[in-house]
Amino acid sequence: MAAGLNVAVVGVTGAVGQTTLKILEERKFPVKDLRAFASERSVGKTVTFKGETIRVEKVGPGAFTGVDVAFFSAGSAQSKEYAPQAVKAGAMVVDKSSAFRMDPSVPLVVPEINADAARSHQGIVACPNCTTIVTVMPLKPLHEAGRLRRVIATSYQAVSGAGVQGVEELARQTLAWARGEAITPKFFDHQIAFNVIPHIDKFGAGGYTGEEMKLVSEVRKILDLPDLPVSPTTVRVPVFTAHSVAVNAETELKVTCARAREAFAGFPGLRLWDEPAEGRYPMPVTVEGQDDCFVGRIREDISLPNALNFWVVGDQLRKGAALNGVQIAELLIR
Amino acid sequence: MAAGLNVAVVGVTGAVGQTTLKILEERKFPVKDLRAFASERSVGKTVTFKGETIRVEKVGPGAFTGVDVAFFSAGSAQSKEYAPQAVKAGAMVVDKSSAFRMDPSVPLVVPEINADAARSHQGIVACPNCTTIVTVMPLKPLHEAGRLRRVIATSYQAVSGAGVQGVEELARQTLAWARGEAITPKFFDHQIAFNVIPHIDKFGAGGYTGEEMKLVSEVRKILDLPDLPVSPTTVRVPVFTAHSVAVNAETELKVTCARAREAFAGFPGLRLWDEPAEGRYPMPVTVEGQDDCFVGRIREDISLPNALNFWVVGDQLRKGAALNGVQIAELLIR
Repeated sequence: MAAGLNVAVVGVTGAVGQTTLKILEERKFPVKDLRAFASERSVGKTVTFKGETIRVEKVGPGAFTGVDVAFFSAGSAQSKEYAPQAVKAGAMVVDKSSAFRMDPSVPLVVPEINADAARSHQGIVACPNCTTIVTVMPLKPLHEAGRLRRVIATSYQAVSGAGVQGVEELARQTLAWARGEAITPKFFDHQIAFNVIPHIDKFGAGGYTGEEMKLVSEVRKILDLPDLPVSPTTVRVPVFTAHSVAVNAETELKVTCARAREAFAGFPGLRLWDEPAEGRYPMPVTVEGQDDCFVGRIREDISLPNALNFWVVGDQLRKGAALNGVQIAELLIR
Repeated sequence: MAAGLNVAVVGVTGAVGQTTLKILEERKFPVKDLRAFASERSVGKTVTFKGETIRVEKVGPGAFTGVDVAFFSAGSAQSKEYAPQAVKAGAMVVDKSSAFRMDPSVPLVVPEINADAARSHQGIVACPNCTTIVTVMPLKPLHEAGRLRRVIATSYQAVSGAGVQGVEELARQTLAWARGEAITPKFFDHQIAFNVIPHIDKFGAGGYTGEEMKLVSEVRKILDLPDLPVSPTTVRVPVFTAHSVAVNAETELKVTCARAREAFAGFPGLRLWDEPAEGRYPMPVTVEGQDDCFVGRIREDISLPNALNFWVVGDQLRKGAALNGVQIAELLIR
């Protein structure tokens, strides 16, 4: 271990892949050799890691031979195809896609919340969806303080949650507007500049989107509360990075604002920015680039005795994805 | 009446004042003479109404002599000072400010909902806050269908809700970004371009903002449900025009999605855009400039038996302000 590990990043040219490289460096993850994988069209490109230039390869036969830890952020189809190959080759897989999250044999882990679950892995540990992570971080200490009874989560999600193309689309449309040109949607279904789109992922049963149902099922699995009532609304907003979620949470026991603040402030990975009189509350532009999730606007719900409203913001490329993945890997190699 | 009415618009150069002129024209409101009032710094400017150029005046002694209907959208302090003068001079006042909304002797009216309340006026009829109007429009038919028990409203509010300066601020910051320059906040407390700000109006008791508490008290007054539990979160987003609200509404009686759709579609001023499979749901850029409010994303709440989630969008300068004001005036002169 002192000599380091052979690490593979699959989907290395994507927004999460790039952030994974950054975080492996920042946290001094013991990397001996780094292999950079991406799709066919990125082969030949290079990425930089610890000052070294690394050629991007396509996953082929024997790709994972000798790899100790593989981070997957290339999409669900790629994970389904290649993650079992990596496991077979002896690698531990940290999967950022939705491929295995709800598989009962695969732990779904946010290290601050359910690190123990990772121990039972059979080669793959899944990393939750970005919106799930940002939402579940304050839910855990609140559950410990008063036992969750019902959660209503309403999101404001950044375009980089949809990857590099989402960022390009917002930038392109905004620049077109600045030049006085017409705005045309290419990547998102509708204009995203100066608009909000109440639709992320595909529509499914009951009119809920895939993103909304991920939030429900993943929060339940991470908190080990399989029947927790969760009501989700997920919305894309013209923000580059960091997801915000307005949460209404009902508890069995009364949790005062003071008690909630204490619980949030004492939870690792969570920080309290809740001084409204000073105009201090979390926002995407102040949270972007930060590792922690930030909670503010904590209010007792005036419509119900045992409920709280609060506002949580997290950099969904970092804690919402790459950082959480690297934290999982740190657990696995311990 | 056939000869028309003398109409005054106070705050004529503002976003709502300008829209009021447009709507008076569009709806062929019987205007004989129009007087255009604004603050000192706008005196000497002109506005256009029905092709005529009208000089902007300052409200002075005798300003409302002979005026039949006065629309106030200059702010609360101005309404408090001048609306009683206008009433004394014999005018009927439609007040768009928050000055008199919660005054028990002043009706607070959304014509589709509580037109009857306007009859009891003593000179002033108040027009609700923009977010209230957009939120309360679908709540009324839902209440008729199943009796409201609790409402959780989470908003995505456009910058023009803060007036012309809000629009200028978003445009200025976005253009600075396009030129690669630093973004500086001047009008809003924080950067609004590519950001969301969970703070509208001043903070008050319990950590709620004025905007949030307006939503609570005004919805209750309009629906004549003084104890209705309402839980509000209001957020500014980088959108020019049209407010969106994610609503979770619990009812005494079960209201199915089908029944809710029917109730919404049959309510005047409300339209249904709820064909998710076709990517059809309301959004600010498709609703801007429209008179009606639009509802979509109607889903049974999976976390509670008798509750629905839906998404409502309205042009807050039109139905959320100027149009509602002109509709009130139409009631008054009937």
